[in-house]
Amino acid sequence: MSIKLHCFGESGHSYKAALALELSGLDWEPVFVDFFKGETRSEDYRANVNEMGEAPVLVDGDIRLSQSAVIQGYISEKSGKFGGKDAAEARDILRWQLWDNHKLSSQAGMTRFLINFLPQDKQPAEVIGFTKARLQAAYQVLNAHLEGRDWIVGNGVTNADLTCCGYLFYPEPFGFDRADWPAIDRWLSNIQALDGWKSPYDLMPGSPADRA
Amino acid sequence: MSIKLHCFGESGHSYKAALALELSGLDWEPVFVDFFKGETRSEDYRANVNEMGEAPVLVDGDIRLSQSAVIQGYISEKSGKFGGKDAAEARDILRWQLWDNHKLSSQAGMTRFLINFLPQDKQPAEVIGFTKARLQAAYQVLNAHLEGRDWIVGNGVTNADLTCCGYLFYPEPFGFDRADWPAIDRWLSNIQALDGWKSPYDLMPGSPADRA
Repeated sequence: MSIKLHCFGESGHSYKAALALELSGLDWEPVFVDFFKGETRSEDYRANVNEMGEAPVLVDGDIRLSQSAVIQGYISEKSGKFGGKDAAEARDILRWQLWDNHKLSSQAGMTRFLINFLPQDKQPAEVIGFTKARLQAAYQVLNAHLEGRDWIVGNGVTNADLTCCGYLFYPEPFGFDRADWPAIDRWLSNIQALDGWKSPYDLMPGSPADRA
Repeated sequence: MSIKLHCFGESGHSYKAALALELSGLDWEPVFVDFFKGETRSEDYRANVNEMGEAPVLVDGDIRLSQSAVIQGYISEKSGKFGGKDAAEARDILRWQLWDNHKLSSQAGMTRFLINFLPQDKQPAEVIGFTKARLQAAYQVLNAHLEGRDWIVGNGVTNADLTCCGYLFYPEPFGFDRADWPAIDRWLSNIQALDGWKSPYDLMPGSPADRA
């Protein structure tokens, strides 16, 4: 029985888990979460899928996991991939996953949502300006770290890379332009060159086109 | 040689690490980070302490770690405490640490900063309203989870508890009132009853009183 991932195309947090599954070679299939119809906020979802009301959620037999970094850790255990070569690398990978979760993907995901998925007259301009400014600081940290490096941790792709790229391949604007950040741009190209790489809307069901 | 923790009293992220160290019984000492004089933004701090420009940072001999959840994991390895009883609990602990990092402590810390540590005429009212509303959703998730439970994961205190409480013991207002959330209130009392528990300003150097 293949691994199931509750996810949807617009979710960069889901993309982190889906990309790790796809590149790991494990057998998996997506289960579409209808976020834009309120599925994650429903009583049923909270009671039976995830009390946190979030995607992604991975189900593998009796095991049910949420939070993309927990899911990526599980994928590494099963596949032997992306988890780093020793305890020091594993800690460093987790460090970047946590940083991403606090400073990069969380902010990028919210900013992109506010700008692209809310009606224009409901967009909170001051909030958007605030999070865009915070994101500039995050891009700066990541770009500085990647100068002279091909990958975030060690000498190959790890979950640190598959996490921090979560929102950076999306086409919708949220104040990120690859051309402004040469080291990030080069690193994203390294990820895109991996065998089996797919963009978020090619990897998971659901996209803005479905709702147009 | 004792473990050193770069931290400061106002930082709930530092508190998570300091509290785990204190309750673990490991020998440790704080190194004061002068955040309010810009130390974490300095070139020296980024080059020699933490490229992410954040506290806390733990130094134990040659090992240097940042991100409170990574530090807590290391403390569990060394002390045998707070890490959960098996792989399933360990994953569940990490899940709550990540959730906290994204939805609770990150938002609480920022909201508290904006309301209490910025001059009144520089406080972004729309941002504060926005993050306060998001925090209500987070308190709701945590309170619902704690109904009928003494601890977040399993039957005893773990890093999940020592993480999610990070900002909830501070006296400054940020839209959180224990009286509104009975299950959270009871759980915080459980933490306060632990042998060796200290409040943030008693555990770490630096407090608003120093700058008054």
